[in-house]
Amino acid sequence: MPSLVNVNNGLSTVPALADVRIDDAFWAPRREVVRTHTIPQQERELRTGGHLDALRGTWRPGEPEPHVFWESDVAKWIEAASYSLTQVPDPELDAAVEEVVALLAGAQEPDGYLNVYFSQVRPGRRFTDLRDAHELYCLGHLVEAAVAHHEATGRTSLLDVVRRYVDLVERELGPGGSCDGGYDGHEEIELALVRLARATGEARYLDLARRMVDARGREPFYFDAETERRGDEGYFASYFPDRPRQVQRFREYNQSHAPVREQSDAVGHAVRAMYLYCAMADLAAETGDDGLRAACERLWTSVTERKMYLTGGIGADPSIEGFAGDHELPNESSYNETCASVGLVMWAQRMGALTGEGRYGDVMELALYNTVLAGASADGTHYFYGNPMASDGGHEREPWFGCACCPPNLARLLMSLPWYAYLVRPGQVDVTLAVGGSARLDVPGVGEVRLDVATGYPWTGDVAIDVTAPPGADLVLRVRIPGWADGARAELNGEDLPDDAVVDGFLWVERAWRAGDRLSIELPMPARRVWADPRVRADLGRVAVARGPLVYCVERPLDGSADAPDPAAVVLARDEPIGTSWSDELGLVVADLPVRTIDDDAATVEADGAAAPDGAAPLHRRTPPRTTRRTAEAIPYFAWANRGPSAMRVWLLDSAPA
Amino acid sequence: MPSLVNVNNGLSTVPALADVRIDDAFWAPRREVVRTHTIPQQERELRTGGHLDALRGTWRPGEPEPHVFWESDVAKWIEAASYSLTQVPDPELDAAVEEVVALLAGAQEPDGYLNVYFSQVRPGRRFTDLRDAHELYCLGHLVEAAVAHHEATGRTSLLDVVRRYVDLVERELGPGGSCDGGYDGHEEIELALVRLARATGEARYLDLARRMVDARGREPFYFDAETERRGDEGYFASYFPDRPRQVQRFREYNQSHAPVREQSDAVGHAVRAMYLYCAMADLAAETGDDGLRAACERLWTSVTERKMYLTGGIGADPSIEGFAGDHELPNESSYNETCASVGLVMWAQRMGALTGEGRYGDVMELALYNTVLAGASADGTHYFYGNPMASDGGHEREPWFGCACCPPNLARLLMSLPWYAYLVRPGQVDVTLAVGGSARLDVPGVGEVRLDVATGYPWTGDVAIDVTAPPGADLVLRVRIPGWADGARAELNGEDLPDDAVVDGFLWVERAWRAGDRLSIELPMPARRVWADPRVRADLGRVAVARGPLVYCVERPLDGSADAPDPAAVVLARDEPIGTSWSDELGLVVADLPVRTIDDDAATVEADGAAAPDGAAPLHRRTPPRTTRRTAEAIPYFAWANRGPSAMRVWLLDSAPA
Repeated sequence: MPSLVNVNNGLSTVPALADVRIDDAFWAPRREVVRTHTIPQQERELRTGGHLDALRGTWRPGEPEPHVFWESDVAKWIEAASYSLTQVPDPELDAAVEEVVALLAGAQEPDGYLNVYFSQVRPGRRFTDLRDAHELYCLGHLVEAAVAHHEATGRTSLLDVVRRYVDLVERELGPGGSCDGGYDGHEEIELALVRLARATGEARYLDLARRMVDARGREPFYFDAETERRGDEGYFASYFPDRPRQVQRFREYNQSHAPVREQSDAVGHAVRAMYLYCAMADLAAETGDDGLRAACERLWTSVTERKMYLTGGIGADPSIEGFAGDHELPNESSYNETCASVGLVMWAQRMGALTGEGRYGDVMELALYNTVLAGASADGTHYFYGNPMASDGGHEREPWFGCACCPPNLARLLMSLPWYAYLVRPGQVDVTLAVGGSARLDVPGVGEVRLDVATGYPWTGDVAIDVTAPPGADLVLRVRIPGWADGARAELNGEDLPDDAVVDGFLWVERAWRAGDRLSIELPMPARRVWADPRVRADLGRVAVARGPLVYCVERPLDGSADAPDPAAVVLARDEPIGTSWSDELGLVVADLPVRTIDDDAATVEADGAAAPDGAAPLHRRTPPRTTRRTAEAIPYFAWANRGPSAMRVWLLDSAPA
Repeated sequence: MPSLVNVNNGLSTVPALADVRIDDAFWAPRREVVRTHTIPQQERELRTGGHLDALRGTWRPGEPEPHVFWESDVAKWIEAASYSLTQVPDPELDAAVEEVVALLAGAQEPDGYLNVYFSQVRPGRRFTDLRDAHELYCLGHLVEAAVAHHEATGRTSLLDVVRRYVDLVERELGPGGSCDGGYDGHEEIELALVRLARATGEARYLDLARRMVDARGREPFYFDAETERRGDEGYFASYFPDRPRQVQRFREYNQSHAPVREQSDAVGHAVRAMYLYCAMADLAAETGDDGLRAACERLWTSVTERKMYLTGGIGADPSIEGFAGDHELPNESSYNETCASVGLVMWAQRMGALTGEGRYGDVMELALYNTVLAGASADGTHYFYGNPMASDGGHEREPWFGCACCPPNLARLLMSLPWYAYLVRPGQVDVTLAVGGSARLDVPGVGEVRLDVATGYPWTGDVAIDVTAPPGADLVLRVRIPGWADGARAELNGEDLPDDAVVDGFLWVERAWRAGDRLSIELPMPARRVWADPRVRADLGRVAVARGPLVYCVERPLDGSADAPDPAAVVLARDEPIGTSWSDELGLVVADLPVRTIDDDAATVEADGAAAPDGAAPLHRRTPPRTTRRTAEAIPYFAWANRGPSAMRVWLLDSAPA
C-alpha cells in the first residue's frame, strides 16, 4: 500500500542535541544534577525494583508480578541517558544503557512482541486489552528510546528491536490482525511513530500513527468490541468498578468518546490527552492536515483558557488523573500530575512549530519553569507525582513510585531541553526559550548558523544573542517575547528596534547578519499580582504573585526553620509594592510581600476578652480576627517542599477582594 | 445479681408530651406538616420499599435482601407516630401503628430474637458481627419505639416484644453467652436501655447499658476477638477495604479505640458518637458517675469548640460520616449528617439536664434551628442526608434513602419537641427553648405548674411567660438566655429584673408565684457578623451572618427565579449595617446584605480590553476583577434548597479580611 503522506515536510526541525551547549547559571547546574544524580538514582531503582530482573525472565508464578508498564519506565530512562550521552561522554552510563538494551532484546519474543507482563504472567492474552493494558503505550516509549539511543550512539540495536515489534503491531492492527482497527487506551505510540518515521524516513510509520489517531472514538467503539470479545472488564476492573455504569465518563477518560477531529473539550486522563494532542499536532505538521490542526487549536483553548492552573499544571480531578469541568480548579485537591505538564510542554512545542505563534511558547515556559521543575527536588532524587496548589504539610516528594512514570519523564525532558529552546525553519531560526549557551544550527537555505546566548533568565530579563551566519545569507531570527513582558525592549547592535518588530509573540529580525552582530533584549520583570477569571470559584477573593515566567508561593516549613507565616492566613495588601531580592541562602529570587496575617489568637481570646466567644461556640466569634502587618517571603513555586514538610499556597487572600 | 444503680435519681425529668401544647407561628405549622405529610409519606415508603414486606417473612433467596438496619427505620417511624398520637388523636394512624407493631411481633423468633435480615437471609449468623451488623442498634430503636408506643397508647404489645428481645441480649452478652462482653458497633442500645429502665423502673436495664458502655474500648478488644472467631471481615468488608490496614482509624470509627472514660477527642462516625455520649450523660445523671460526666464534658468541648460547623452540623469527613481533625471544617465537602445534628440536640439536652448549664441549650437550639431543620424540605417530604455549608447546585433533597436513618429521626425529634423546651427539677422548671404554647408540669415539691408562653421566636426575641403555680409554693423558674443575646432584658410584671439574675446561662426567678404573674424577656436580634477561629483554615478571609439562633446563607436558585448573585462571588462589606425584613413571599425574615459582587466579566474582557489577559493565559489577568455594589438577600440556612437546584454559601468573602 503506498503511503498517503510524506515524512517531514520540512516546516520545522529541532536541533540535534549534540549541537547545543547549555552553560547558563540556571539550567546548566540543574541538568548536571539530572546527569549526576537523577539518572544514576533511577538506574538503581530499575535494578533494585524488579524492572531489570523482569526483563531477565526470572519471574515465577506466586512472586510479585511485573507491572504492565514497566517497559515504559525502562524506556524513558534509556531516553534520558541517551540524551545525556550527547552532552557529556560517560562510558559507565553508556555501558549501563547497552546492558539494558540487551535485556530488552533478550526479552523480545521470536515474532517481535515485547512486554514481560504478558510474556510471562499472562501468556496468550497479548493485545486483548488495548484499552487498559498499556502494551502500545510501552511500545511508544520504547520507540522514543530507540530513536534517542540511535541518535546518541549511532547504534541500531534497540531500533532494530522496536522496529520488529512495530512490524508485528502493524500486522495485528491491520486487516485480519488480532486487533484490527484497534488503538491503545493510553496514547503515546502515535507520537512515537511520527518520531520513528522522521528518524527512518519511512512513511508507513506515519500511516500507522494516523490510522490509530483516526480510528479513535469512531463507532462502533473498538474498546466495546474488545471488551465483549474478552468477556471481562480487563486489567483496570478493580481500579474502576463504576466504569460499566459510567460509560461516557470512561470513554472520555482515554479520549475515545468521539472522533478526535470532532473533539473540542479537553477531557479525561491528562497525560493521555497530552500525548494524543502531540501526535495530532505532529501529524498536522507532517501532512498539512487542517482538520487535525483545527482540533488541536480548539483543544488548546479548552486546556489553557478553561482548565489550566496558574502554574501550568493540568488535570484537576484526582479520581481520573485528569481534567475536571471548565474553571473547576480547586487548590487543595489539585492533582496536576508532573507527567501532564511534561506532556503540555511537549504539545506546546509542537503547536508552536505548527503555527509559528509565540503564545504556545508562553504556556510551554509556564509549565516548564513551574510545575515541571517542581516535580523534582533540588537534589534531583525525589519526585512529586501530583503538584498541589496548596498544602497543609501533607505533601512530600518520594524517591520512586509504584507507577513511576513521572521521574524518568522529567529527566528526559530536561536532558532534551534544546528542543524547546530552538526551532529551525527554512531561512529562519526561532528562539523560543532564553537559555544561556550556544547552538549550531543547520538552517535550510542559509547554512550553518551559530547563536551565542547570554542571559540571566529566569531571574533577570536580559537576553543577549550573538549571531554568526554565513556572510550575505538572509536569515530571519525570531525571539519569543513572553506575554507577561510589558515594556520589553530590543536593540540590534545598540540601536533600538521598533515596537512593531514584535508579531505573533516573536521579535522578528531579518537581515544578512554580519560578524559581531548582537541582538539584545530586555524583558522587565517586576513582581506582579495575578487574578483568576472569576469563573474559577476557588480563586475568588484571592490573588497570586508572579515574576517573569515564575509563579510564586508562600511556604512555611513545619519545623519552624524559617520565620514564615501560615500561608493560609496571609492577606496580600492590594496596593503596596512587592519587593524582590536575591536570597543567597535559598539561591533564589524571593519576593517580599506586604501582607497582613490573620493571627491564630486562640490562646489570647479568653485571656483579654477582646474577641468574645459567640455563645457556647468559641469556634465562632462576633469580632473579626486580629491581624498583624509584616513582610512575607514568597519563593518560586518550583522550589517549594525542599525544606521538609511545609505548608504552602499559591493563591493568597486579597486584602481588597471587592 | 443485685443492681449497682438506682433508676432515675430524680435530678430532672422531661414533661409528658401530652401535657404540652405548642401553638406558635413557627413550630406549630412545622409540626403539623410532620403529622400530616412526613409521617404518612414515610409510612408509604416503608410499605412500598420492602420494610414491612420483610417483616412478613416473604423474602426468598435471590430477591433483593432486607437491610440489616430496616427495623430501625420502622422503629423510628413508630416512635414519631406515637409522639404524634399524643398530640392529635388519629384512628387511622393508630391502626397503622398497631399493624406495624403486629408485624414486628410476628417477626420475632421464639427465643425473642428480632432481626429479619439474620432470621431470613443469614440464619445462624446472629450476633456474630456486633461491630458492623447493627442488631443491637436496631434493638435500641425498637426499645425507644416501644417506650414511646406504651406512653402514647398505654399498650404493652411492643414493649413486651422488645423486653423479651432484651432478655435474650442480656443472656447472650453475659457470662457463657454467645457474645459475652460484647457491645454494638453502632451505639444506640445503651441510651435506649436507660429509657427502658426509666419507663419500667427496672434497674437491670441500666446495668446492661452500663456494662456495654464500660466494656467499650477495653482490651482485649471485643471486635478483634469477634472478627477472629468469625474468620472474615464481616458485613462492612466491601465498604471498608482499608480497615485491616487502618486499625486505629476504624476502632475510632465506632469509638471502641479506648475505654469511654478515657476518651477526650470526639472521633469516628458522628451519629454513633452522639448516641454513645447520650448514654454516657444519661448514666452519669442516673448514677452520679463523675467519671462518665467528666468524659462527657471533655468530649463536649472537643465537639463544640473544635469540630462543629457554625450551623451546628458535625461530622466533616464524608469517608467515615464522621469527625475530622480539630478545626478541619471544609465548606464544600462538609458532610454534616442530619442524624448527627439530631443526636447533638439529644446529647445537648442531656448535658443541660445533667449540669444545669444553659450553654448546652445554646448548642441545642443552634443544631435544631439550623442543620436539623435544614434536613427536611418545607413540605416535609424530602430530606437531606448531608447538609453542606456551600453548594454549586449539586445538592437536592431526596424523598428517601437506601439507608433511611435521617427522615424518621427528624420526624421523631420534632414530634418530641417539648422535651427540648422544658425540664422539670425538684422545685424548679427550666425553659430551655422559647416555644409558644402551654405546658402543664408536675414539679416535685411544688405541684402542678402551668406555663403559658407567647413568643415570636425565632423571628423576634420577645418571650412572655404567664406562670400559674400552687399558691404559696416556692418555685424556681429558669429561662435560658442565649449566648448570642447581647443586651437581653427581663421584666417580672413590668418591673426590670437585675442583670445578675442571669447565672449559668439562665435567668433565675425564684418566688411564690401569684395569679397573673408574667415574666417578659426581650432578646435583641440584630443581624450580626460572625467570624471563625482562625485555625479553621476554610473560613479564613470569610464572614457569616446570623440573627438570633438562625444562621443565614446566600442562595441563588439556578433557574434564575430570584435576582440573586452567585454566593461564591459575594463580598460582604465589613462596616455597613445589615438590614433585615420580613418576606411575605418566602415567609422568612431575610437579611439584606451590603455587598459587592465579583463580576463574571468573561464576556467583556476582550471587548473593552479593561482586563487584559496575562500572556497566553486569559484565565489569569493582571487586573483585579471588576465588582458591583448591590444588596444581596440572605435567608435562614434551614430554608435553603426549597426553590429547586441552587447555589448556596454560608461563609461569604469578607471585604476586609485584614
